Amino acid sequence: VITKNQIKLIKSLALKKNRIKHQLFVAEGVKIAEELLNSDYEIVSLFATRDWIARNTFDTVIQVSNAELSRISNQKSPDEVLMLVKIKKHQIIDDNGITLVLDDINNPGNLGTIIRMCDWFGVKQIICSKNTVDNYNPKVVQSAMGSVFRINVIYTDLTEYLSNVEKPIYGAYMDGNNVRDINFSKDLHLVMGNEANGISKEIDQYISGNVAIKNIGNSAESLNVAVATSILLHEICS
Amino acid sequence: VITKNQIKLIKSLALKKNRIKHQLFVAEGVKIAEELLNSDYEIVSLFATRDWIARNTFDTVIQVSNAELSRISNQKSPDEVLMLVKIKKHQIIDDNGITLVLDDINNPGNLGTIIRMCDWFGVKQIICSKNTVDNYNPKVVQSAMGSVFRINVIYTDLTEYLSNVEKPIYGAYMDGNNVRDINFSKDLHLVMGNEANGISKEIDQYISGNVAIKNIGNSAESLNVAVATSILLHEICS
Repeated sequence: VITKNQIKLIKSLALKKNRIKHQLFVAEGVKIAEELLNSDYEIVSLFATRDWIARNTFDTVIQVSNAELSRISNQKSPDEVLMLVKIKKHQIIDDNGITLVLDDINNPGNLGTIIRMCDWFGVKQIICSKNTVDNYNPKVVQSAMGSVFRINVIYTDLTEYLSNVEKPIYGAYMDGNNVRDINFSKDLHLVMGNEANGISKEIDQYISGNVAIKNIGNSAESLNVAVATSILLHEICS
Repeated sequence: VITKNQIKLIKSLALKKNRIKHQLFVAEGVKIAEELLNSDYEIVSLFATRDWIARNTFDTVIQVSNAELSRISNQKSPDEVLMLVKIKKHQIIDDNGITLVLDDINNPGNLGTIIRMCDWFGVKQIICSKNTVDNYNPKVVQSAMGSVFRINVIYTDLTEYLSNVEKPIYGAYMDGNNVRDINFSKDLHLVMGNEANGISKEIDQYISGNVAIKNIGNSAESLNVAVATSILLHEICS
């Protein structure tokens, strides 16, 4: 059984200010629960249906009916289990590899996909501008499908951060050089800009190399930023 | 002003059976209207706000209030204009280039992104299994952002179709050969499978080469099919 106060708390976590206040976020679903239980994140509360409880062990599970789960879930089709998880504040690690830098990515589905692709391509950390959508936003957590528990995501002032980077810093521009023509080192930063406006003016000066994905058909005007990031990471990492 | 019958008709077009019955689909928004007016699709009715009408010319535009537009729109934030468009039945063209084949893609957002990426990479036609989501589904039309008016999308029996193809047929598999290690000819078919089940058993026999995107991080379990298609098309076309 779930209390009114629990429902109120869970609903409140849709907003970033409440996630910060309580230092909690929501994660849902059977697959994500499995990955979360194998991670070093701390699950503070776990609400699950009888079916989930029959197949899993967790110390202090709170059993809920399907109707109760529907009341607290953000999903159209709630999937057996919902968890309240303690936020982890990531530190910048000194990584000899690819670091992805996000300059004001707004759409949570895009950030989720980008986190997922970093996990796929072995990129360990993402440095985000302070205006980039929060990685503990419920839509980010769901679309990243568990990868959010494995990738370091850090929010910081990008101009300050980039001014101290000594590795090559590539930036994605519509009119950049064809990514296929560039020989990348295995130790670099890649900056992706905002969905509508691209890389911001203050950041331009830190970019040492422009990259683009060639528009072969020459009729579509733009690429989705998550797809563009995926193509560039594949090109650089594979 | 919009009539009750018009509202009923527009709402009914959310379902494929009604789109087939009326041979009409819905497209919305300023950008898509612009692309549609430059295409060879026939706009049967065009509903627009005073603002849109002030900036554009169209013979028989029906002026609607913002409230009326909200009633007929599928969008959270309706964007000035909604059109009823005549369905075009595409024919298979004999194309010396890349043909994409989709084996039961279910998610309309995925098909929309895939159509968009074909437009970007100059792929002119997509052959779909009969169970692949309809390209005139409103979510496909919106996520393809106008590319749906430029790409040939054909629904047919895939086993019959593929049994007559004489070009190399590549298929995407989780355990296929690294796409980076393959030299592709510029004249080939690429088959992408269903989101959950991959390429179906009946289709396997027609595949002459397996391709995969290397899982470098080795922790994420799967790739979104639209992202995987984008990476493979970039690898093959660029």
